[in-house]
Amino acid sequence: MRPSKRAADELRTVTLERSVARYAEGSCLVTFGETKVLCTASLEERGPHWLRGSGKGWVTAEYSMLPRATHERTRREINSGKPSGRTQEIQRLIGRSLRAVTNLPAMGEKQITVDCDVIQADGGTRTAAITGAWVALHECFAWMRARSMISVDPLRDHVAAVSCGIVKGAAVLDLDYAEDSGAETDANFVITGTGGLVEVQGTAEGKPFSEAELLELLRLAKGGVADLVALQKQAIA
Amino acid sequence: MRPSKRAADELRTVTLERSVARYAEGSCLVTFGETKVLCTASLEERGPHWLRGSGKGWVTAEYSMLPRATHERTRREINSGKPSGRTQEIQRLIGRSLRAVTNLPAMGEKQITVDCDVIQADGGTRTAAITGAWVALHECFAWMRARSMISVDPLRDHVAAVSCGIVKGAAVLDLDYAEDSGAETDANFVITGTGGLVEVQGTAEGKPFSEAELLELLRLAKGGVADLVALQKQAIA
Amino acid sequence: MRPSKRAADELRTVTLERSVARYAEGSCLVTFGETKVLCTASLEERGPHWLRGSGKGWVTAEYSMLPRATHERTRREINSGKPSGRTQEIQRLIGRSLRAVTNLPAMGEKQITVDCDVIQADGGTRTAAITGAWVALHECFAWMRARSMISVDPLRDHVAAVSCGIVKGAAVLDLDYAEDSGAETDANFVITGTGGLVEVQGTAEGKPFSEAELLELLRLAKGGVADLVALQKQAIA
Amino acid sequence: MRPSKRAADELRTVTLERSVARYAEGSCLVTFGETKVLCTASLEERGPHWLRGSGKGWVTAEYSMLPRATHERTRREINSGKPSGRTQEIQRLIGRSLRAVTNLPAMGEKQITVDCDVIQADGGTRTAAITGAWVALHECFAWMRARSMISVDPLRDHVAAVSCGIVKGAAVLDLDYAEDSGAETDANFVITGTGGLVEVQGTAEGKPFSEAELLELLRLAKGGVADLVALQKQAIA
Amino acid sequence: MRPSKRAADELRTVTLERSVARYAEGSCLVTFGETKVLCTASLEERGPHWLRGSGKGWVTAEYSMLPRATHERTRREINSGKPSGRTQEIQRLIGRSLRAVTNLPAMGEKQITVDCDVIQADGGTRTAAITGAWVALHECFAWMRARSMISVDPLRDHVAAVSCGIVKGAAVLDLDYAEDSGAETDANFVITGTGGLVEVQGTAEGKPFSEAELLELLRLAKGGVADLVALQKQAIA
Amino acid sequence: MRPSKRAADELRTVTLERSVARYAEGSCLVTFGETKVLCTASLEERGPHWLRGSGKGWVTAEYSMLPRATHERTRREINSGKPSGRTQEIQRLIGRSLRAVTNLPAMGEKQITVDCDVIQADGGTRTAAITGAWVALHECFAWMRARSMISVDPLRDHVAAVSCGIVKGAAVLDLDYAEDSGAETDANFVITGTGGLVEVQGTAEGKPFSEAELLELLRLAKGGVADLVALQKQAIA
Repeated sequence: MRPSKRAADELRTVTLERSVARYAEGSCLVTFGETKVLCTASLEERGPHWLRGSGKGWVTAEYSMLPRATHERTRREINSGKPSGRTQEIQRLIGRSLRAVTNLPAMGEKQITVDCDVIQADGGTRTAAITGAWVALHECFAWMRARSMISVDPLRDHVAAVSCGIVKGAAVLDLDYAEDSGAETDANFVITGTGGLVEVQGTAEGKPFSEAELLELLRLAKGGVADLVALQKQAIA
Repeated sequence: MRPSKRAADELRTVTLERSVARYAEGSCLVTFGETKVLCTASLEERGPHWLRGSGKGWVTAEYSMLPRATHERTRREINSGKPSGRTQEIQRLIGRSLRAVTNLPAMGEKQITVDCDVIQADGGTRTAAITGAWVALHECFAWMRARSMISVDPLRDHVAAVSCGIVKGAAVLDLDYAEDSGAETDANFVITGTGGLVEVQGTAEGKPFSEAELLELLRLAKGGVADLVALQKQAIA
Repeated sequence: MRPSKRAADELRTVTLERSVARYAEGSCLVTFGETKVLCTASLEERGPHWLRGSGKGWVTAEYSMLPRATHERTRREINSGKPSGRTQEIQRLIGRSLRAVTNLPAMGEKQITVDCDVIQADGGTRTAAITGAWVALHECFAWMRARSMISVDPLRDHVAAVSCGIVKGAAVLDLDYAEDSGAETDANFVITGTGGLVEVQGTAEGKPFSEAELLELLRLAKGGVADLVALQKQAIA
Repeated sequence: MRPSKRAADELRTVTLERSVARYAEGSCLVTFGETKVLCTASLEERGPHWLRGSGKGWVTAEYSMLPRATHERTRREINSGKPSGRTQEIQRLIGRSLRAVTNLPAMGEKQITVDCDVIQADGGTRTAAITGAWVALHECFAWMRARSMISVDPLRDHVAAVSCGIVKGAAVLDLDYAEDSGAETDANFVITGTGGLVEVQGTAEGKPFSEAELLELLRLAKGGVADLVALQKQAIA
Repeated sequence: MRPSKRAADELRTVTLERSVARYAEGSCLVTFGETKVLCTASLEERGPHWLRGSGKGWVTAEYSMLPRATHERTRREINSGKPSGRTQEIQRLIGRSLRAVTNLPAMGEKQITVDCDVIQADGGTRTAAITGAWVALHECFAWMRARSMISVDPLRDHVAAVSCGIVKGAAVLDLDYAEDSGAETDANFVITGTGGLVEVQGTAEGKPFSEAELLELLRLAKGGVADLVALQKQAIA
Repeated sequence: MRPSKRAADELRTVTLERSVARYAEGSCLVTFGETKVLCTASLEERGPHWLRGSGKGWVTAEYSMLPRATHERTRREINSGKPSGRTQEIQRLIGRSLRAVTNLPAMGEKQITVDCDVIQADGGTRTAAITGAWVALHECFAWMRARSMISVDPLRDHVAAVSCGIVKGAAVLDLDYAEDSGAETDANFVITGTGGLVEVQGTAEGKPFSEAELLELLRLAKGGVADLVALQKQAIA
């Protein structure tokens, strides 16, 4: 029995609320149970210098946690002068995931930065961030189309993400912090709306895992992402 | 006529919602119109080394803005490696304001850090932060009393803050961004529940101001803070 | 009785010696009793990039203390990699104060940086710095006029500053370190030659202060600044 | 046909030369074709402070590339003041991989740091580093046993790693730079001597990949790692 | 003929004024013509941790230039976050030079930091700094002896320094900025009161120099240092 | 008797192997006994901005040590955020030494960066680096001539370097770590193929040295450099 009483293949309650930030071109507050991430998409007048003349745009992401998003207060990264390795790993992952479903030439030579700020953290912040970031990015492209800045939607597909893991020998979907901190294997899957794999990251925290376990985790993730994509469709409707 | 149609001595709609952060010992989401600041108070097991043996506690504050809290996206300070001068000025101000009404020896040798994270910025973020931080700190002390960690309430008084300014020649209370960016004089007042002055900061942005103008701004601020203190009392009731 | 035997409204001995730096376009060594600050004004061939095409100039300031300006040696800020919050607060204040009396378009698209380096610190370094910086800036503009780089004096007025405080219940002018470290309220006033207020910063170090006390401090400051402006006039004569 | 004429499941020539660093407790120069990584294992007298009293040891890794390991010279990270996100990601991966096969309590409260410095880079540096780091770590433990610092071998198994990818639609093993830069999917597998999975990281660089493709890459990786483990056994014989 | 009309073996006017800093345990303002360096010696209650239990003291130095010490304003190093290579080279040289004549065990386990801040720079700042730092250090030791903190003078000898160079083919002593910037060879010599060599640093700026030239520069330096030591003796008398 | 049984004027076994780096335009692995330094010369498409329009090129150097090049592991400089003073001193020395024999206008407006990475350190790393860097630079110029990027060889002469010292009262050539750590005087000499002096750096580690000792060290160095230049000639033949 999971601490949250959920079935092995059951997501936490997930909500995707868009248009939550007054000034951003796109935004989404995503919650996976007690995990809450504010995603804002900002259209930037000037992208990086290497964009000029390239004939395509760029989507990038930044990720941060509020200091008291967590059970114990976490020191602000600004006070150590640089983002941690974990932060950089996550923001690179979010950016790659969004670009995997974006037609960059269709954007024009513009950059969109999606900021994912964790308001509250109960496990699965990076996968929640990817799921919400897609909604914010979608809203940003809608904003651009409404102003005739682009003529076609640069998004080729949905993308969403979910964590899975082996906890006490059993494969489970969408770990909360209590499960995550004791998992033997921890995996994150980024999957498109049509079921294509964008990122697969599995890590043995304790003993190594088997191919059969990897496949079981992948099966759970596909089911979870299908549900998340359905929620994204509702959110942008 | 003010852009917001408010009277010269009229605050924006102010709300103070407490217990908004699941893990923090105290928290408050404060809004002044479209300005929104999340304040969390964290009781820290270990304060700075100079606290040990001092027989008193410490209250400190940190302040940050989400990148897209603002009209244009602001670069994260982590990317320049250090907090800006403005950030440091504000977090020092919040900390001093809270300590001015705290009986530090009554806290025991503990540190409380109040994090003020601006979710949305429409002027007056530092004064909103002080006003909300007091509520979060109050809740943290209640949490400690409920666990018999302290026997008396270390808070001696309320403290709240408001901005005022001279805009197009007229003194007005609680400037929003539209007013603030064009103000001739900009002033912030931090005042206790019993009307004592904790901080007075007046700055001529254009031409110098007169003693009479300073007094008129102070009169507006006193009225505004009285209203804010009444709202704090409701929030903690 | 003050430790220095001065009357409540009495400045320390103040000197303003200009042309003390061989290479700078303007300079002034200012002393307020044992506090000594070297101010140099440097005309910079290239200002910040946003100046180009703006049709106006810019005046900025930097502030630093020699490590052994103080009673105990202070660690150099370079060794922690960034200016402290206090340093940044002070250099922003000096810059704003100078710009408040400068006709920026009259300067042309040039930047002047006024460096204020504290040689010895006995309280009131920021107010001494502002008072001396004005003289250095004046000398720099004279240098430019002598070379026909500008046709009118960009300075519209004098500006000078002084600290005041409530010490043992009494309002006093121009605190030295011994008074400053025990003051209940500490205030800095930046005032123009014609008595306009540029900056008012009052901080309760212990218990809050009253409106009456603020006004008494302001009265002392106005008298002090009038004397300082007279000394500036002598210095540039 | 691959640019290197290799079969799809064929590794480059791999060599593992140990005892190459005179001063380190363990070392290995690993080459995968033109990729060369020097791995040294350093037994540190003092580990991080949280090790004391924990009853177990720690293995960590650092990774860096010489500036001209690459086709074009890469700027040293020291000149930007911090390790890049990529560097941090890789050194975290190496450390996790080694710890997955190490019995930390059997080490005593000591830290071993394995430095992986890329002398020449032709793709697959992180997987080569893991493969060589295991040999250096093994040699370090042998050094400790020879001095009776530990009584049993803390290594529970071999661990080695290899990259795979989808290049022009075909799954291939051990990509060199020419293949890697054009791969549609890029994956790294860290696998133990007994075939357990430690890390699986698959990334779609262009279009998403399918479950079948993931399984084909995994099959290639298992074969490659089996060969690498055989070479590790020869190297330590 | 030298630009300053000096003979080849003639120093600029050198002055050494001690007790110039009110708070420092030792101080000296040294001038070599237009070069002015303020040297303060600070006795530090707590030295570096490795001093404890070592049975000896430590003398270290820090060096900095005021931004407008130079013909053109120099950016403060704090703004690039770290001391330049030149600054570090110089402060290491000053520290080594002072330690070469100090009996470290006779100091007790204390650290003295000598700060050398260049007020005005016209060439030869590092050699002026060493010459003045010795006087400040001597005064600091006298301060300690007067308080019975040490019983013998830890200084075993004088140390002073001077620059020499080959300018337009001729060897000259004590280069000012005009000569230094065009010198073919630049050399700095640190020499004790009894004529022992502490540091010899000769650098060809243009074409290489010969052994005969090195010897001629050394001859000039010995004469110059003898004069500087005589001035040190007067200063401390 | 020296620990290595060498005669006072005897170099360690020196090897200079060129073309060791596949991608660099020039490279050399230099060994002085157990000291090993990899030198690569990189022709950079874009040099520093001040090069443009100057009509000449630039040669610069960077120096670093692998963490376990040394007896005890050295912390990577990246982890403290900046190169140490020692590192900066050495890389400035290498760059100056190479430029002393380079005809910069003959290079065109290009920059060559010579990276000197110490693989193993047993004393004399900076002098080995200079000796090897010259070979790498020579190979880089040959690469450019082969592509008709330059028409004449910009190298005017050889340059090589060696350390000498006073150990137990005797002057010896080419100190290894065991000798270096106990030397009374430590000196580095950079000398051209025709015997011109480029850099002379002598430092008393313990008691001061005499002019006679300096001359004896110089005599040893000249002999050593003559041998090194002969080896350079073989290496490039």
